[in-house]
Amino acid sequence: MAARPKSQTASLVASCDDVEAQFYEALQQGDLERLMSVWADDDDIVCVHPGGQRLVGPQAIRAAFESIFGNGPIPATPTHVRRIEGPGCTVHHLHERIDIKTDEGPQAAWVITTNVYLKTVHGWRLVAHHASPGFAREPIDPADGPSTLH
Amino acid sequence: MAARPKSQTASLVASCDDVEAQFYEALQQGDLERLMSVWADDDDIVCVHPGGQRLVGPQAIRAAFESIFGNGPIPATPTHVRRIEGPGCTVHHLHERIDIKTDEGPQAAWVITTNVYLKTVHGWRLVAHHASPGFAREPIDPADGPSTLH
Repeated sequence: MAARPKSQTASLVASCDDVEAQFYEALQQGDLERLMSVWADDDDIVCVHPGGQRLVGPQAIRAAFESIFGNGPIPATPTHVRRIEGPGCTVHHLHERIDIKTDEGPQAAWVITTNVYLKTVHGWRLVAHHASPGFAREPIDPADGPSTLH
Repeated sequence: MAARPKSQTASLVASCDDVEAQFYEALQQGDLERLMSVWADDDDIVCVHPGGQRLVGPQAIRAAFESIFGNGPIPATPTHVRRIEGPGCTVHHLHERIDIKTDEGPQAAWVITTNVYLKTVHGWRLVAHHASPGFAREPIDPADGPSTLH
């Protein structure tokens, strides 16, 4: 078998956590190509931004992020991650902390997010990112235990 | 092998569409037991109601639906369903039409929803239901084609 390019090999062995880290780093950097590389190549992949419509397929998702990045990167950090693992499928649900600079100093807003990853021939890929309007304060999460904070 | 009870056999051969139909029928009927029977028995299952917090685990999800059903059933009908299928996992994303009776006659509101199903030893089960505040009118969905309407 021919040797795979290093980047492709790295991608194939990446875990869901690696792919999720890449997604949020790309958001924080406003890196559209890196962001789109974590998604599965499937016409039915879905992205819902807080307060937004349902975006279906790579073209619509790319166009929306391109527009968002036109105003700058998204300072979103995943917190309180919970995981549901199936065969070839992992669901992460979490709170995104969005760091905002205001005249009164740095503030945070919170978004509730579900990310779904499927194992494809190209490795783990994001197929659904659903984010809901959150809250101005860190949400109270009675289900949180020590193992769910990171 | 001992014969399975009929209801258990029916549950094991049910498709994701069957399970989803059962979920929405239970919402429409305000049937808490039927509603909870579609969920996987997993501490990390997640439910996000429009504008609500993240509810994690069967106990929190059950308590929230019990409270909601105290005000009556939820007249939600799934429309514009799109499906992403993986090994042992299916993601449905859709618009829920909520039929509301007002003094000006019947009206509809719309919710954007992602449902994730995993294949368990008990058959297909819901592990994530994430619903976002939608719109007062039927959302424009340029990705819709004839095969996605039902």
